[in-house]
Amino acid sequence: MSITAPKGFRAAGVTAGLKASGKPDLALVVNDGPARAAAAVFTSNRVAAAPVHWSREVVKDGRVDAVILNSGGANACTGPQGFQNTHTTAEKTAAALGVSATDIFVCSTGLIGEQLPMDKIVAGIGAAAAGLSDDGGAAAAVAIMTTDSVSKQSLFTGADAEGNPFIIGGMAKGAGMLAPGLATMLVVITTDADVRPEMLDVVLRDATRVTFDRADSDGCMSTNDTVVLLASGASGVVPSAGEFGAGLTQVCADLARQLIGDAEGASHDIAIRTFNAASERDAEIVSRAVARSNLFKAAIFGKDPNWGRVLSAVGTTDAAFEADALNVTMNGIQICRNGSIGDDRRLVDLEPREVLVEIDLQAGNAEATIWTNDLTHDYVQENSAYSS
Amino acid sequence: MSITAPKGFRAAGVTAGLKASGKPDLALVVNDGPARAAAAVFTSNRVAAAPVHWSREVVKDGRVDAVILNSGGANACTGPQGFQNTHTTAEKTAAALGVSATDIFVCSTGLIGEQLPMDKIVAGIGAAAAGLSDDGGAAAAVAIMTTDSVSKQSLFTGADAEGNPFIIGGMAKGAGMLAPGLATMLVVITTDADVRPEMLDVVLRDATRVTFDRADSDGCMSTNDTVVLLASGASGVVPSAGEFGAGLTQVCADLARQLIGDAEGASHDIAIRTFNAASERDAEIVSRAVARSNLFKAAIFGKDPNWGRVLSAVGTTDAAFEADALNVTMNGIQICRNGSIGDDRRLVDLEPREVLVEIDLQAGNAEATIWTNDLTHDYVQENSAYSS
Repeated sequence: MSITAPKGFRAAGVTAGLKASGKPDLALVVNDGPARAAAAVFTSNRVAAAPVHWSREVVKDGRVDAVILNSGGANACTGPQGFQNTHTTAEKTAAALGVSATDIFVCSTGLIGEQLPMDKIVAGIGAAAAGLSDDGGAAAAVAIMTTDSVSKQSLFTGADAEGNPFIIGGMAKGAGMLAPGLATMLVVITTDADVRPEMLDVVLRDATRVTFDRADSDGCMSTNDTVVLLASGASGVVPSAGEFGAGLTQVCADLARQLIGDAEGASHDIAIRTFNAASERDAEIVSRAVARSNLFKAAIFGKDPNWGRVLSAVGTTDAAFEADALNVTMNGIQICRNGSIGDDRRLVDLEPREVLVEIDLQAGNAEATIWTNDLTHDYVQENSAYSS
Repeated sequence: MSITAPKGFRAAGVTAGLKASGKPDLALVVNDGPARAAAAVFTSNRVAAAPVHWSREVVKDGRVDAVILNSGGANACTGPQGFQNTHTTAEKTAAALGVSATDIFVCSTGLIGEQLPMDKIVAGIGAAAAGLSDDGGAAAAVAIMTTDSVSKQSLFTGADAEGNPFIIGGMAKGAGMLAPGLATMLVVITTDADVRPEMLDVVLRDATRVTFDRADSDGCMSTNDTVVLLASGASGVVPSAGEFGAGLTQVCADLARQLIGDAEGASHDIAIRTFNAASERDAEIVSRAVARSNLFKAAIFGKDPNWGRVLSAVGTTDAAFEADALNVTMNGIQICRNGSIGDDRRLVDLEPREVLVEIDLQAGNAEATIWTNDLTHDYVQENSAYSS
């Protein structure tokens, strides 16, 4: 169950000494082909990290030979020196693998505004290249962790119309998401299916739009968020866009759910489903407005089914609805009916970690779900007690 | 120093028994004229409380005889019964004062989604009318408090071009703001200047735009926020729009600053000033994006001058700037220069309650300041431990 499960990939995770904790901090993923097709999506933050600028250029031709990731510093807001350090990272990795630096995709995560210790990075690249193995996926998933409490991996086995199997493997780090992001989210997805870069790009954007883009733990967008998808073609199987996209979406949804489940300091994972909306866009903005209400999130932490805070967030949007036609259900109890008092709020059980809030706009047939977390003492503690 | 300082006003604050605490919960402000000019601004939340719907209609003709305010329940999301209760409140107040119900402005604040105990309200109205006095402003300011730890009042004495004096008095409640709002913000401002309703409306909108609208404690918008301005004309002084507007803006700014200073659970009051922006709109959205970043707000609570969290918030906006031309100064220390590492962050002293963050976009000459608070354990506690 890892990025090395599909044929044609090797990986490694090593300790380069970037972290004070002494934990693994450098991962390398290599596509041995025969194909080296790739696509990627990046943070939409205009203050993007040096590796984001670099990797955007690398993936433009649809070819990536390897991904090098460090979890000891974001290399964001580091000026020309920071970009030079990303360039050097790519060159040293390329030299170790005997490929071109322009085919090396670079990711970084950690504190913003600090230069990376390049001597340690360079030494670590040598160790990672030497340690590459076809079961190195799990070690790589550990080496990209920052505030994560567990590593995150996912696996999907699919088949084309004739039943020929292909595999998609994924790993993720970060209690965050693509855009916005709590902390930097880095995701590497591999497949042995034979898929051209153009199709990879289309299905990756489709999949991330309804998975990572709808995980909104704390509304903050990172400078480094990246999802990269590599296809080796080693299975020789050529699935249709539908066959491949379905599997890819499943892997992305699984990883996004794992990110929400491990979000910094959270005690509840909250699915906010808006339905009977006039459009999917309306459903998404309503769910996101609720997901970003600190008052709502603090209430869920306190196990208080405070539907007034749901309605006051819904009311800030321009979605189509009438205020006196809103229904809100929390974990199955309809506590708000037609914009007013519904069933007894004391019937709502908010003890379980997973919470389902359903908002009925009575304005159409579209729906969307945003995943978020509650606002807790531990969130404040983790994000105030030290720089991250 | 209160709403009864201007000539022509009486007020009262009484205990109607709406609050479990037994604290004062009903306030009445009466304009004895000779003029009864008025203007008001309201929450832009589409889920607006019953008193907001009522009072919007009342003020449309530019005349308000009295304002009745309760702090024992928001009367929001309460359906037709809630609107009927507001109507009854206006009628009973009008009867006690011998005026028309359509000239009675009603405000409510407290928990959303509960019906008001009308027997207590009606009895309280009688007591408030009986207790009206020309030094009742301070008692009224106390009776509108909910989670406020102190009452908020402001006073301004101005003069027309010939030196004839007029007075503006104000009171406010809520650790919140007009739009958005942390908790319901209610503001009553009185003046004995002789100002027509049309001019009151213009200067009130101008004043709130740069004061209450730029106080953004936690990004949450209330269903009840209201600012109402009453002019008695009792001084006989007719100031110009400029003379009156300057005083009104000063009173609004003073009250807004008091609201931020008393925000729920806050340990820092943070002014986020964006300057050298291409437009005032750009400056405002940049400052507001930073004000709404939970990661930034938690860092300030932790006294951590984490400028990376400032830049990542700036990067989410569409304001005109280049990422490598951003400067950030915190309490006088320029910790980010040209989008990269500036002076030593350890030089920044975040011990004082007041924090000044200055963001230089290097893109023009406009500026704007948003006031916000830090994200603290006490904020989470106050908003999770009980319904509010």
